[in-house]
Parts: sequence; structure tokens; C-alpha cells
Amino acid sequence: MTNNNFDSKAFRAALGTFTTGVTIITATAQDGTRVGITANSFNSVSLDPPLVLWSLAKSANSLPVFTETKHWNVHVLSVEQESLSGRFASRGEDKFAGIELDDGLTDAPLLPGCTARFQCRTAFIHDGGDHLIFIGEVLRFDHNDLPPLVFQSGQYALTARKPREEIRLTRAEPPPECSYTEDLLGYLLGRAHFQMVNRLKGLLDEQHLAQEQFFILSVLCIRDRLTLDDINEYIAYTGYTVDLNDMEVLITGGHVVIEDGRYRLTADGREASLHQIAQAKAIEEELVEALGPGDAMALKLLLKRLIERTDPGLPDLWAVSN
Amino acid sequence: MTNNNFDSKAFRAALGTFTTGVTIITATAQDGTRVGITANSFNSVSLDPPLVLWSLAKSANSLPVFTETKHWNVHVLSVEQESLSGRFASRGEDKFAGIELDDGLTDAPLLPGCTARFQCRTAFIHDGGDHLIFIGEVLRFDHNDLPPLVFQSGQYALTARKPREEIRLTRAEPPPECSYTEDLLGYLLGRAHFQMVNRLKGLLDEQHLAQEQFFILSVLCIRDRLTLDDINEYIAYTGYTVDLNDMEVLITGGHVVIEDGRYRLTADGREASLHQIAQAKAIEEELVEALGPGDAMALKLLLKRLIERTDPGLPDLWAVSN
Repeated sequence: MTNNNFDSKAFRAALGTFTTGVTIITATAQDGTRVGITANSFNSVSLDPPLVLWSLAKSANSLPVFTETKHWNVHVLSVEQESLSGRFASRGEDKFAGIELDDGLTDAPLLPGCTARFQCRTAFIHDGGDHLIFIGEVLRFDHNDLPPLVFQSGQYALTARKPREEIRLTRAEPPPECSYTEDLLGYLLGRAHFQMVNRLKGLLDEQHLAQEQFFILSVLCIRDRLTLDDINEYIAYTGYTVDLNDMEVLITGGHVVIEDGRYRLTADGREASLHQIAQAKAIEEELVEALGPGDAMALKLLLKRLIERTDPGLPDLWAVSN
Repeated sequence: MTNNNFDSKAFRAALGTFTTGVTIITATAQDGTRVGITANSFNSVSLDPPLVLWSLAKSANSLPVFTETKHWNVHVLSVEQESLSGRFASRGEDKFAGIELDDGLTDAPLLPGCTARFQCRTAFIHDGGDHLIFIGEVLRFDHNDLPPLVFQSGQYALTARKPREEIRLTRAEPPPECSYTEDLLGYLLGRAHFQMVNRLKGLLDEQHLAQEQFFILSVLCIRDRLTLDDINEYIAYTGYTVDLNDMEVLITGGHVVIEDGRYRLTADGREASLHQIAQAKAIEEELVEALGPGDAMALKLLLKRLIERTDPGLPDLWAVSN
């Protein structure tokens, strides 16, 4: 049955396009040694009886433990457990060091913090070429809403859930002579950004501050004692350039004082800024709730990647000053 | 072995947290009838010999075909094939209608446009409770770079690939008294948006136009003959409010004329706008290339979801005017 015409690197790459979750499968040897391996070959088989399967390389060190024991646990990892996935994928001394196990139905180690867990008893073991296929009856299971970790083409990933119907912001197509569409990333970023800023606007109105003054206070809250040039360097990313008039508004309002050509926040200015931060965090929480934690994480990841790849070389606002 | 204490809905939900790709598996019956079913129970088993597996419900109409034939093809679907997934998941008259099949090694139907394909010969069939487990030797395979379709918790999804190391835009933490961080969605959206706008700035400088004038031309390019109030309504999402002076700059520059209190583009104005569109599309292409097609698609999807869920009720720029 061996097929020697195969380019095994290409075969792995082709198999890797099939996306999977990531699981850790654990068992305890007869001498009490705990074993655990990272596997993405898990899948469901049957609902009644409840059966799941996974495959283990015949060359795996832990093979004798899994063939001898009757009990093993499957842990579907959450996005927070990427480092655990790495730990159980490599040969380590004690992969379980520092982990407080939960109490399980059997002697198989039960890891905490997972998206789902299946406590199983071996039903069948089948031959599968260079692997053995373990089929287990699920004795007990539990799951929660933690976004699961995903693996695709050799990389970890997050998912962005697709809606049942495509999201359309407009019901009409633009006229043919105009080829702007709602699908342009530039439009989507602009609109998402401005809708976010508008949510802060009520507070800024109360504080009698314009958006550019909000940017100035934010920068001074992170890094104090800046010249006008410093400030402009740090808010360059916003597209705004502020001038002495903008600073004068803040001085008159009691938010900022100038000493030796450098601006710093007054107590009132800091308080105004802290209010803005509190508001920004409240908006953030609302949005994460509206999107769901998995989608919010994926959105942030993708925005960071976009920013990194389009960064014209902006100064690091948070870097420790020299 | 039956376990009647199971809440089968909860069991399905727990199994569903394990993310999978989506496949269509096809075969041809002895009488020439083609069958195909959507399955996410696919997985790799062995590299040498090359084996894959999938499970089929014993109640499936196509079961006799798959147990009788020796040949079947596994198609890992791309994100573009969501409707195909739906078609092969339901009982239809002729699921293959309108599909031009590729030539395969065997008589099993070979679908085009997939992320990966595995042409297989049955190696073993094992019992798996209410399913049969098909293990196939891979005779031939192919794959490409189309982002694959993903299934998680009963929904289709896209993936956002996680980098090997977390992306950090800054190397420092902000001072403790300031709790702005680079992780705030508001900051990430703002910075991503402004970095995008800055890429258009060179062209706007050449055209002697400020950003607000760019917004006005964009709106007039989509919807012509607008009053100042109309224009402000449509660009409200940008946070800008334009006045007669802004319009005067465009009239003096020859981009816009006013007739009966309504503004419209001149031929020069339309040409300037078309240049801007061309530039915006070039930037878009660059960014999609930088992110990769899967990440770009996921980012757009998430931004649309965010916009939809934070929409304060903005007017539809593209809607047909009354």
C-alpha cells in the first residue's frame, strides 16, 4: 500500500489546509506517570453511542501508555492555551508541572481552562498506517464559551465567525461610473474609526474639548513635559497638526501649563484625561461584548498586523524616553 | 455501550467547539449516479502510507454507494465555496448540476475551485457507532493558496492567522498612572485608519486638496447634485462638517459648480475623483497583498460587523435617491 511517488512535504502542506482545533490528550500509565500529547487529529464519530476518535503516531513515546490504559481525556484548547499546546507538543520532562488538575471521572489527568473536555474509555483501536486510531466512548464532557484555538497550515489562528447572511451596510450598488464601494478597506476603517470617536464625543462636548485637544491630553497623559514639536510628532498618526492656538485653549481651560517651553498636565487636565480613559474603556467593553470575545480578539490581531505592515515609521508613543 | 444519560444537544455543542475545515466527499455508484456529501469529520491519519479518514452516518442515503465503490474524492472547500457546502449538505435532486467537473484518476467526481483535493481508494471501513469510518489511501492530491472555509460551533468562519510572536506596536508599557494601552480597539482603529489616509495624502497634496475636500468629492462622485446640508449628512460619519468656504475652494479649483443651491462635479472634478479612486484601489491591493487574502477577508468581515453594531443610524450613501 506504500506509495513512494509522494512528495511528503507537499502532502503535509495539502493536509494542513484542512483547519482543525487543537487538543491535548492525556492518560496515566500503570506506574502513575502522567502523559499528554498535543493532537489535531481529533474528530467526532458518533452521537449514539457517543464516540470520538484521534490518531497517535506508532513512533510516539507515549504509545504504550495509551494502548495499555483504558482511559484518556481529550481537551479542546482555548485561545489562551497556546503555550500549553506548545508544551505538550514537545518532549518535556514534566509537562504537567505547575498545572493544578481538576478531578476527573478516571485516573486520566484533567486539565483546567479548556473550551471543551471529553473523558473517554477506549472503545476500539484500529491500525492506520504509521498511526493508531483510538476510538473512545465519551463518559463525561463539559464545555464553555472560551474561544477555541485553531490550527491551519502550520500556524495557530483565531476565527472570525461568518454571519448567516452577508453583512451589507448599504442596500444599493453605487452608480457604475463611480467605483467606490463599501468593500474598500479604507472606507471600512474610516467609518469604524469615526463611529468609535463619535461615541466619545458627548464627553468631549461636556469638557468643551475638540478632538485634537483630546489627542493632546492623551499624549500628555502617557508622556508628560513635551514641546509643541514633540506633541505633533506623537499625534502625527492622527493626521492632525496642532498649533499654539490649540495649546492656548487647553491653558485657558486649566488643563495644561507651560514651563520652559514644555507642556504638562495640571491636576484638572489629568482628571479630564482620566475621565476620557474611563469612557474609552467603557466603549471598549461594550464593543467587545457586541462582537463577542473571539471576534474582538481576531479584529485586534488583524488591525495590529495591518498597522505593522503599513507603519510609515511612527515614533513609539509608549517607549521610555531617553 | 449506549450511554443514555447524555444530553445529546449539549454533546453536539461540546463537539462543535472543535473547529474543522469543511469537505465535500464524492463517489460514483455502479449505475453511474454521482453522490456527494458535506462532511467535517475528515482528518489525516498517516503520512506513510498516506491515509486519511472521514465518517458517514449509517442512515445516510449515499451509504451503499460509498461501501460498494472503492474510490472517493475529498475536497477541502475554500471560503468561496460556502454555497457548495450548503448544497451538498442538503438532500437535492442533482447536486452536481451546473458544475464542470475536472478529470480525476478514478470515476469519482472531482470538483473544481477547492483549496485541496485528495483522490482516495478505500483502505479500511470500521464500525463507529451510528457512523462508519472510511479510511482511504491517497492516490493523488493537489492544493493551492485559496483561504479555506472553516466551521465552528454551527457557523461558518474565516481564520485570522496568529503570528509566531505576539505583535507589539510598542516595546514599552505605558506608565502606571496612565491606562491607555495599544490594545484599545479605539487606538487600533484610529491608527490603522490614519495610516491608510496618509497613503492617499501625496495625491491630495498634488491636487491641492485637504482631506475634507476629498470627502466632498467622494460623496459627489457617488451622488451628484447635493445641497450643503446633504453633503454634511453624508460625510457626518467622518466627523467633519464642511462649510461654504470648503465648497468655495472646490469651486475656485474648478472641481465643483453650484446650480440652484446644489453642487455637482465638473469634468475636472470627476477626473480628480477618479484619480483618487484609482489610488484608493491601488492602496487596497497593496494592503490585501500585505495581509494575505484570508486575513483581508476576515478583517473586512469583522469591521462590517463592528460598524453594523455601532451604527448610530447613518444615512445610506449608496441608496438610490428618491
